[in-house]
Amino acid sequence: MEGTVLCAANHAPLTPISFLERTALVYPDRPALVAAGPAAAAPRTWRETRERCLRLAAGLVGLGVERHDVVAVFAQNIPAFCELHFGVPMAGAVICALNARLDAGMASVLLQHSGAKVVFVDAALLGVAQEALLLVSEAGARRPTVVLISEALDEEEPSPSPPPEWHEYESLLLLRSGSSPEEEGFAIRWPGDENDPIALNYTSGTTSRPKGVVYSHRGAYLNALSSVLLNDMAALPVYLWTVPMFHCNGWCLVWGVAAQGGTNVCLRKVTSAAIFDAVARHGVTHMGGAPTVLTMVVNATAEERRPLPGGRPVTVMTGGAPPAPPVLFRMEELGFLVIHSYGLTETYGPATVCTWKPKWDALPPAERAAVKSRQGLHHLGLEVDVKDPATMRSVPADGRTMGEVMFRGNTVMSGYYKDAAATAEAMAGGWLRSGDLAVRHRDGYVKILDRSKDIIISGGENISTIEVEAALFAHPAVAEAAVVGRPDEYWGETPCAFVTLREGQRQGVGAEELMAFCRARLPRYMAPRTVVFVPELPKTATGKVQKFTLREQAKAMGSIPRSKLQGGTAGARSKL
Amino acid sequence: MEGTVLCAANHAPLTPISFLERTALVYPDRPALVAAGPAAAAPRTWRETRERCLRLAAGLVGLGVERHDVVAVFAQNIPAFCELHFGVPMAGAVICALNARLDAGMASVLLQHSGAKVVFVDAALLGVAQEALLLVSEAGARRPTVVLISEALDEEEPSPSPPPEWHEYESLLLLRSGSSPEEEGFAIRWPGDENDPIALNYTSGTTSRPKGVVYSHRGAYLNALSSVLLNDMAALPVYLWTVPMFHCNGWCLVWGVAAQGGTNVCLRKVTSAAIFDAVARHGVTHMGGAPTVLTMVVNATAEERRPLPGGRPVTVMTGGAPPAPPVLFRMEELGFLVIHSYGLTETYGPATVCTWKPKWDALPPAERAAVKSRQGLHHLGLEVDVKDPATMRSVPADGRTMGEVMFRGNTVMSGYYKDAAATAEAMAGGWLRSGDLAVRHRDGYVKILDRSKDIIISGGENISTIEVEAALFAHPAVAEAAVVGRPDEYWGETPCAFVTLREGQRQGVGAEELMAFCRARLPRYMAPRTVVFVPELPKTATGKVQKFTLREQAKAMGSIPRSKLQGGTAGARSKL
Repeated sequence: MEGTVLCAANHAPLTPISFLERTALVYPDRPALVAAGPAAAAPRTWRETRERCLRLAAGLVGLGVERHDVVAVFAQNIPAFCELHFGVPMAGAVICALNARLDAGMASVLLQHSGAKVVFVDAALLGVAQEALLLVSEAGARRPTVVLISEALDEEEPSPSPPPEWHEYESLLLLRSGSSPEEEGFAIRWPGDENDPIALNYTSGTTSRPKGVVYSHRGAYLNALSSVLLNDMAALPVYLWTVPMFHCNGWCLVWGVAAQGGTNVCLRKVTSAAIFDAVARHGVTHMGGAPTVLTMVVNATAEERRPLPGGRPVTVMTGGAPPAPPVLFRMEELGFLVIHSYGLTETYGPATVCTWKPKWDALPPAERAAVKSRQGLHHLGLEVDVKDPATMRSVPADGRTMGEVMFRGNTVMSGYYKDAAATAEAMAGGWLRSGDLAVRHRDGYVKILDRSKDIIISGGENISTIEVEAALFAHPAVAEAAVVGRPDEYWGETPCAFVTLREGQRQGVGAEELMAFCRARLPRYMAPRTVVFVPELPKTATGKVQKFTLREQAKAMGSIPRSKLQGGTAGARSKL
Repeated sequence: MEGTVLCAANHAPLTPISFLERTALVYPDRPALVAAGPAAAAPRTWRETRERCLRLAAGLVGLGVERHDVVAVFAQNIPAFCELHFGVPMAGAVICALNARLDAGMASVLLQHSGAKVVFVDAALLGVAQEALLLVSEAGARRPTVVLISEALDEEEPSPSPPPEWHEYESLLLLRSGSSPEEEGFAIRWPGDENDPIALNYTSGTTSRPKGVVYSHRGAYLNALSSVLLNDMAALPVYLWTVPMFHCNGWCLVWGVAAQGGTNVCLRKVTSAAIFDAVARHGVTHMGGAPTVLTMVVNATAEERRPLPGGRPVTVMTGGAPPAPPVLFRMEELGFLVIHSYGLTETYGPATVCTWKPKWDALPPAERAAVKSRQGLHHLGLEVDVKDPATMRSVPADGRTMGEVMFRGNTVMSGYYKDAAATAEAMAGGWLRSGDLAVRHRDGYVKILDRSKDIIISGGENISTIEVEAALFAHPAVAEAAVVGRPDEYWGETPCAFVTLREGQRQGVGAEELMAFCRARLPRYMAPRTVVFVPELPKTATGKVQKFTLREQAKAMGSIPRSKLQGGTAGARSKL
């Protein structure tokens, strides 16, 4: 409009760096970072944290890091990892948080693909990192500068002895002269454009073609605020890091917790006991986790459990895979308030939320859990739709017609690093295609039926493995369950369930019983025809069940012959 | 970075329209809009509201409204006003919410300056509007199309009889054919660029040169979310409209409440009784108001008061002028939780917030109130600084050195409509200059001392009229107080206080007593030398005291002669 301008006074690139700057001013003395565990040091305040992040950024510039260079981090959930989420962008660089459970081979592939100029290595991962760096050298690629982080190691771990050319994290943060990084002439490298990259996240896929998802400062800013809002995270939360920070930058909450002046309680190893201990000790208000973490909580023994602090519920954001209704139900009984989100690495983590409606409070517990296990609707600031991928038409909201979940909005990735073709393919038609199959219920809420590659097609019918798993979870003896397709001479494929049993239940239940249990709860064609008992399920670093491994196992069992058409196939009980 | 793109899948202009779209999907059956008062109709749901906003937008397009046309609204706080905040932008137009207390002359000036193509008129303001439109015609300017809104009129008001050429709000919303605006071919006119204008707000100044502040879709989106976060407005708030919607679009909360799926309780006339009644009847969780509204609450009689619903505190955002500590203290006693913000029309309303720190909970009540009366620190996403306007250097955080409050960030206005010179002047040096004088305390918190034009300079010393008023407020007999400079032969000027007394206190206190009271609490030169008792203070539509009127009155009293140098000047007691 006439008389208006766009200038320095009224336009600044959106960036999560501003959260740290503000919180260090508003809440300088509040605790920012603490390592959970028996040997927990005093928390660092937000004033200290901002100062350390500045020093880190100045140190990176000293190492020759330039704008848009990639800086990799190979670490568990430790305080330095939070600092790196600010320090790296403050140097104008892009943080590439590598999965802490990578093997040396994959880590070396990603270090090469990302072209990381510097890599920060958690001393707890020293061995794998050294091996990975050797592989980088052997491949003839340029070796990144390495910085070792020794903080928050468990007492029993031996103190590391890294190669002499490695830098040390705390030394990098030392001032050369003067009393602050600013006095030494360092100035934050604010993004020139809010669409500049802030993070590079490799997806948990294990294909030979790494997919590096690029996040922008704008997207990170917006999704951090959306996550704070949709998880009802009021000012000064105490957030327990059960979600790995390398996973979508902790669903953007590394930045969101800073925006709210909260305390990050960092947990190296996620176990039932460690969760309850940290919650009680630090007054945790919020945490997150894949359904595996929820399962861990509900399966905690009486000795591992502690009362929740202040009698308040702890809010748990879950996502990654649809949680089974019985697990949700048990979480509520224990005093946890579960918020169910769903998303992809490509959507900065959470992209839908199963927004809770007060009228559902009156439902019986099982129905409540069933409602909550749906993926829900748009995260704030993002559109979700279920579409026929061929026509790009929305499917009717009838709870039956299946389509592909698609997203559109500011918190969809900038693209796949160095892979313009994959970027174009993922976003063809102006929507990001998720690869997940879903229906839309009459109230608009989306319910994922399966990954398109996981769905079982049996005699022409689609079977959602997620629904079969939910039926199995309802059995009191079942701790975990994963269902895949097994070849079947007549039906093409039929459901094959891999099941772990609860403690004390190991001898009490058989395959036939579980199959009958499912037949009573599902359409007959959906009930498993094979049940395999296993001591544990193969999982990715983020706690997702590796279904491709189970599919291979099911395939190796051979086709179910035609003669067995009417009955179930009793599973082989594995060694327990 | 290589491989990334900016496209429809990952970039959408930020706009508050998206809040309505999302909330109508997520919370379709939740109450969105209700008119408070004894004759309150059933609330409209978010589904209905979205439908009506779409029809409104389609109706505006039918009236010939084009992208970036100005659509004026002259109304009290009624449900239609909320709808217009979405319907007008959905037609691609700019909402210009006029002060409901304008007289016909000023309304006509602003209608002409804004070039409004359409004006919506609340039936309660019919008379003034007709007169204003007559003045527009007499000035030879083009008359806007007029739409009358008759909803939520008090029962005792006569039903209006507008000129026959006027349109009627409910008729404009009728469908011509089909079952929805979309079926009739209407599509939301999303902003092409997020910096496109969404609102035009004339400042409450009364100069001959109207200043029309332009807001963008981006700024409105960001400030709405910031306000929601900083006021700890969790999902599904019930918001009482005590702040006029014409005032910075209700501090952007017309949009913020929609983002959180909240209920807007619309209040035509703000009185102590109406506030308590609405709070109790509708389960209000949040409200706002200038300090005048706070004063109204604390001065409510025992008959007017009602218990707060559910025993929960009601969060009250205050701003507009610094609240006096004793008022804050009394609000807390009544169970209200006051959050103190400060800002300008030019900063979309709230621009700082006196963020509360848990450690302050332990302070004695009076100190708690004193801390809360400071303006605080950055609103989320905006920078505030106190600078020497000549050098643009920040003043030291010593609580003593005065400077001008300045702002920078995405929630600073786009500029003054049709006044590039004023825009450039306001933003010279890359910061928005507020015209307010302040100090910065050692903890960084800003405390406004005065408007630069209100400050009293007495014998070379600056006197903050706000501090003198706070001292007067501490006296139990004082209901309201406003201090201005009065000419003084020796000192240049000295403080002159205009005071209203509480009910039942009208005969009990004299000018000398109040002056002595202030001398005991303030440096001697700051104590008023004149006290004038008045039945009420002159105020703007938003509840701010009109100090220019009082200054004129003080001037008309003549200079204090030199001989009176040592004593106070007893005030003339006005008729009560």
